[in-house]
Amino acid sequence: MLYNTKALLFKVEEYISSISFDKNPETLYKPVSYILSLGGKRIRPLLTLMAGNLFKDNIDELLKPAAGIEIFHNFTLLHDDLMDNSDMRRGKKTVHKKWDANTAILSGDTMLIEAYRFISDIKQDKLPEILDLFSGTAVDVCKGQQYDMDFETRTDVSESEYLEMIRLKTAVLIACSLKTGAILADAPQKDAELLYDFGINIGLAFQIKDDLLDVYGDSKTFGKNVGDDIVTNKKTFLLIKSLELANETQKRELLALIGAEEFDHSEKIKAVKNIYNELNLKTITEKLAENYYIAALEKLDAVNLSKERKRELTALAKDLMNREK
Amino acid sequence: MLYNTKALLFKVEEYISSISFDKNPETLYKPVSYILSLGGKRIRPLLTLMAGNLFKDNIDELLKPAAGIEIFHNFTLLHDDLMDNSDMRRGKKTVHKKWDANTAILSGDTMLIEAYRFISDIKQDKLPEILDLFSGTAVDVCKGQQYDMDFETRTDVSESEYLEMIRLKTAVLIACSLKTGAILADAPQKDAELLYDFGINIGLAFQIKDDLLDVYGDSKTFGKNVGDDIVTNKKTFLLIKSLELANETQKRELLALIGAEEFDHSEKIKAVKNIYNELNLKTITEKLAENYYIAALEKLDAVNLSKERKRELTALAKDLMNREK
Repeated sequence: MLYNTKALLFKVEEYISSISFDKNPETLYKPVSYILSLGGKRIRPLLTLMAGNLFKDNIDELLKPAAGIEIFHNFTLLHDDLMDNSDMRRGKKTVHKKWDANTAILSGDTMLIEAYRFISDIKQDKLPEILDLFSGTAVDVCKGQQYDMDFETRTDVSESEYLEMIRLKTAVLIACSLKTGAILADAPQKDAELLYDFGINIGLAFQIKDDLLDVYGDSKTFGKNVGDDIVTNKKTFLLIKSLELANETQKRELLALIGAEEFDHSEKIKAVKNIYNELNLKTITEKLAENYYIAALEKLDAVNLSKERKRELTALAKDLMNREK
Repeated sequence: MLYNTKALLFKVEEYISSISFDKNPETLYKPVSYILSLGGKRIRPLLTLMAGNLFKDNIDELLKPAAGIEIFHNFTLLHDDLMDNSDMRRGKKTVHKKWDANTAILSGDTMLIEAYRFISDIKQDKLPEILDLFSGTAVDVCKGQQYDMDFETRTDVSESEYLEMIRLKTAVLIACSLKTGAILADAPQKDAELLYDFGINIGLAFQIKDDLLDVYGDSKTFGKNVGDDIVTNKKTFLLIKSLELANETQKRELLALIGAEEFDHSEKIKAVKNIYNELNLKTITEKLAENYYIAALEKLDAVNLSKERKRELTALAKDLMNREK
């Protein structure tokens, strides 16, 4: 049977909350359970199940590797929060704030190993391909985070460098989640590749949309504070593109705003947003996200299955594009 | 053919120095090559090859997984140095001192993933067993490091807690190195287990000997500064056992020495060593290491091969016990 998205999400949540890690040492495992319990969209394990369900009715044996991908994702959040020195994650204290930096390092390391344990618990004949895919993806995610950190001290990041960074940091794991589900459900190689490409494009659209929501989102529905990226000078698509498109005056103003050591948060947000508006960046960014969304749908279309069988995945892609948070 | 230890060590060094990781981002991979180039005894990959060579003449296909274990070991050093805030490693700056904490975190994460990549590059039919062994070991090593850190703030660590900590932090990876070589060389299951147990006992002896050398080693030959563990209040076997054996006066003095915020390094070393001498700890510690060494040799003896075939491994165990550094 083709499960609906809600049913699969329920399965994911049920499985993740049923995981019982070792109890000792407590100092090592409490932060692991803590970060996994903070929730989130569970989009990656959901995509593994959805991709698997395209080709196979019973997807229960995909739950464990799907959870492995979610554990990996949460490991990256845990270490990224420490590296970015973020205080909050999903409305709760980050692990290094609730405990300390060493706890965040070592519990994160443990999560990465646990991720491999979960992902490796599959049929032997699939193991080499799944491991290759996962390890290659995991290294890419580290590269993406490194580029993101390298960009912090630069004001000359190009659009293509930015797109490569978010491909590595965000899109490849989404793509890997889908392809993992497809492989484990014995999909034809070609369809597994198409789902990977669908994932890359949806991942890029998703991240660009995220950049957009930080500036133009509704503070009531958006999960984070609107303007956070502007306050912290995060090299988002909008900032990078505005530095490229700005005239002399606008560029000078932007660089002054970025360089200011002391400033009023809401005034800085307003001033930067002003320049974004002058440069028509809302439309430019929406258009770019839309293009990746269309490319994603084309890949999904090409998967050799009926439209009906793909309707849940098509609907999810649409929801991700139209989300307000 | 049975290789001699020197020849295998040469193979290991040659292989490790031939590894070419990705070049970009430079900020991610330079620290990886740096820490791997600092050398060290390469005892773990050496043991993988030696164990494999017991059962198989050609051990070339063991080089890659053996290197994977060494990469994992260096990952633990990299993150441990950061957590312990150590400045130097093998006479050179640690990664977080040469670069910074974030570099150490992310390059370490990348090394852990690369370790899995190297270890997974083996015949498919061995993959589940090798991965289970490696992931279980890797989690144990994290647990050991967590216990070691937890012990820092305690003065009531028992001997058995200490032995469990070094079993996890040090011995299981030595044991895993040996068993990995045995499995990949198609050793009988029983012999692979015996080599694992040999590794556990040699690992324990090795670490206890390390604790001993910190106090009673020759500063000319010992790689680290003699007395470092005393200065930093490291919960070594000697400190834990002395707290257990001390009379009231000695215990009060030891706790005062541990608790002192300001002190002269050489005076503290002298005073603590004095108490160790009064309690006959050199002999007690040597005896314990010796017992594990004997237990190790018994396990090796039981491996169903000729004494001649096991002579290199027997000699290496002896060298590890008699080492002065």
